[in-house]
Amino acid sequence: MIDLKEDERIDDIQRKGYKIIQNVNKFCFGVDAVLLSDFARVLKGDRVLDIGTGTGIIPLLLEAKTEGEHFTGLDIQKDCIDMAGRSVLLNNLSSKIDMVCGDINNAGEIFKDRYFDVITTNPPYMIGDHGASGENMEKAISRHEIYCTFEDIARESSKMLKNKGRFYMIHRPFRLVELFATLTKYKLEPKKMRLVYPFCDKEPNMVLIEALKGGASRLEVMKPLVVHKSPDEYTDEIYEIYGKDRGSENG
Amino acid sequence: MIDLKEDERIDDIQRKGYKIIQNVNKFCFGVDAVLLSDFARVLKGDRVLDIGTGTGIIPLLLEAKTEGEHFTGLDIQKDCIDMAGRSVLLNNLSSKIDMVCGDINNAGEIFKDRYFDVITTNPPYMIGDHGASGENMEKAISRHEIYCTFEDIARESSKMLKNKGRFYMIHRPFRLVELFATLTKYKLEPKKMRLVYPFCDKEPNMVLIEALKGGASRLEVMKPLVVHKSPDEYTDEIYEIYGKDRGSENG
Repeated sequence: MIDLKEDERIDDIQRKGYKIIQNVNKFCFGVDAVLLSDFARVLKGDRVLDIGTGTGIIPLLLEAKTEGEHFTGLDIQKDCIDMAGRSVLLNNLSSKIDMVCGDINNAGEIFKDRYFDVITTNPPYMIGDHGASGENMEKAISRHEIYCTFEDIARESSKMLKNKGRFYMIHRPFRLVELFATLTKYKLEPKKMRLVYPFCDKEPNMVLIEALKGGASRLEVMKPLVVHKSPDEYTDEIYEIYGKDRGSENG
Repeated sequence: MIDLKEDERIDDIQRKGYKIIQNVNKFCFGVDAVLLSDFARVLKGDRVLDIGTGTGIIPLLLEAKTEGEHFTGLDIQKDCIDMAGRSVLLNNLSSKIDMVCGDINNAGEIFKDRYFDVITTNPPYMIGDHGASGENMEKAISRHEIYCTFEDIARESSKMLKNKGRFYMIHRPFRLVELFATLTKYKLEPKKMRLVYPFCDKEPNMVLIEALKGGASRLEVMKPLVVHKSPDEYTDEIYEIYGKDRGSENG
């Protein structure tokens, strides 16, 4: 039996019967993590790193839905990695998933001589700590570039990816120009982009990007990913992303 | 009376009763020019340059729908500027619109000491002359980067725009990463982007961009511009863009 700490609860992730531990006041995964894990293409045998893994939701979802060989979640927050590590134990996935506490800026030390086929990241969206006061520290760290910038993530990811390795991220559209510039600076060429629109006649509030290490310049802008059909109803695609393995034990 | 040459005809542009001369085999405007002229924001008193003006449709539409002070169309093709110039005469707009034959790479010579508040461009989309054979030369020049590259246009536009001047363009989404990099290289900071989707569940085939000379980095990604409601019917927004001044003499 896995110990739960104060304010923690166990939730079902709707895939292969896997469970996740979340702390209602500090670390809960959002729709962005679910969309990113659906967008990321992980092939049989791939080794995957998730930067800023939080609850560990992305490695758990990717392990459930792909034939990737091994998954690592990295986060700088000790409490968070402790909780994510207990979720791994809860699902008996210790041989498939590692949760590692560390700073992305020490990635060379942490992962020396290890290279990844795929890196995923759902990084802090806000520049610096602007607007971070008033939040608790754990939430602020996951939302604001306090411990690392997007450039830190791109630079270190480029070092850790194999040539032609794939980088998947979700971020805010208002930073798109800078995101493209930073990715290409580190030879992570954006190849696919999908904008996430809350409604089909509203501005997008998230953007999914696939970049290829050492890829040539040509972007495929994908069809819109629309979240709501009406204020009370998701689109069919969102129901599918959330529930495609619902009730199935075979992923 | 204005002379028409072989294969030329006169069409109504659906604004203020203006007419345009088009050559059915060489130069006819498309939906991209109409969308760009709707997207561009021209204020009272603005001086506007349209690079690669073709039939001159963009200066004509902008003169009809805005309070801009003066409009210049530039194109390297002599036949095309001759035809666009006759469209200006046909509408008695010689005091408001100039059509100039010249190479964007000589813009410093052509427009010396003249600065613009707004520059618009619907440039060739295809890189180099790849795939250009089989088209007639006039069409090839408007579709392929034969006489100028996008970088030429961005570099020269940056020189000719006033500080905080606005640059409006339409292009293909597959070149988005490179377009952003080139714009920012020449201090034309992308501020607004709107993707044009043929249908709301298909990939976009055009992108509209507003860049601000000397602007700060922050992009507003706008709601989707969807062209068709069904294969046989445009969306309300497209009907509005095409026909908003239909039957009115007051713009």
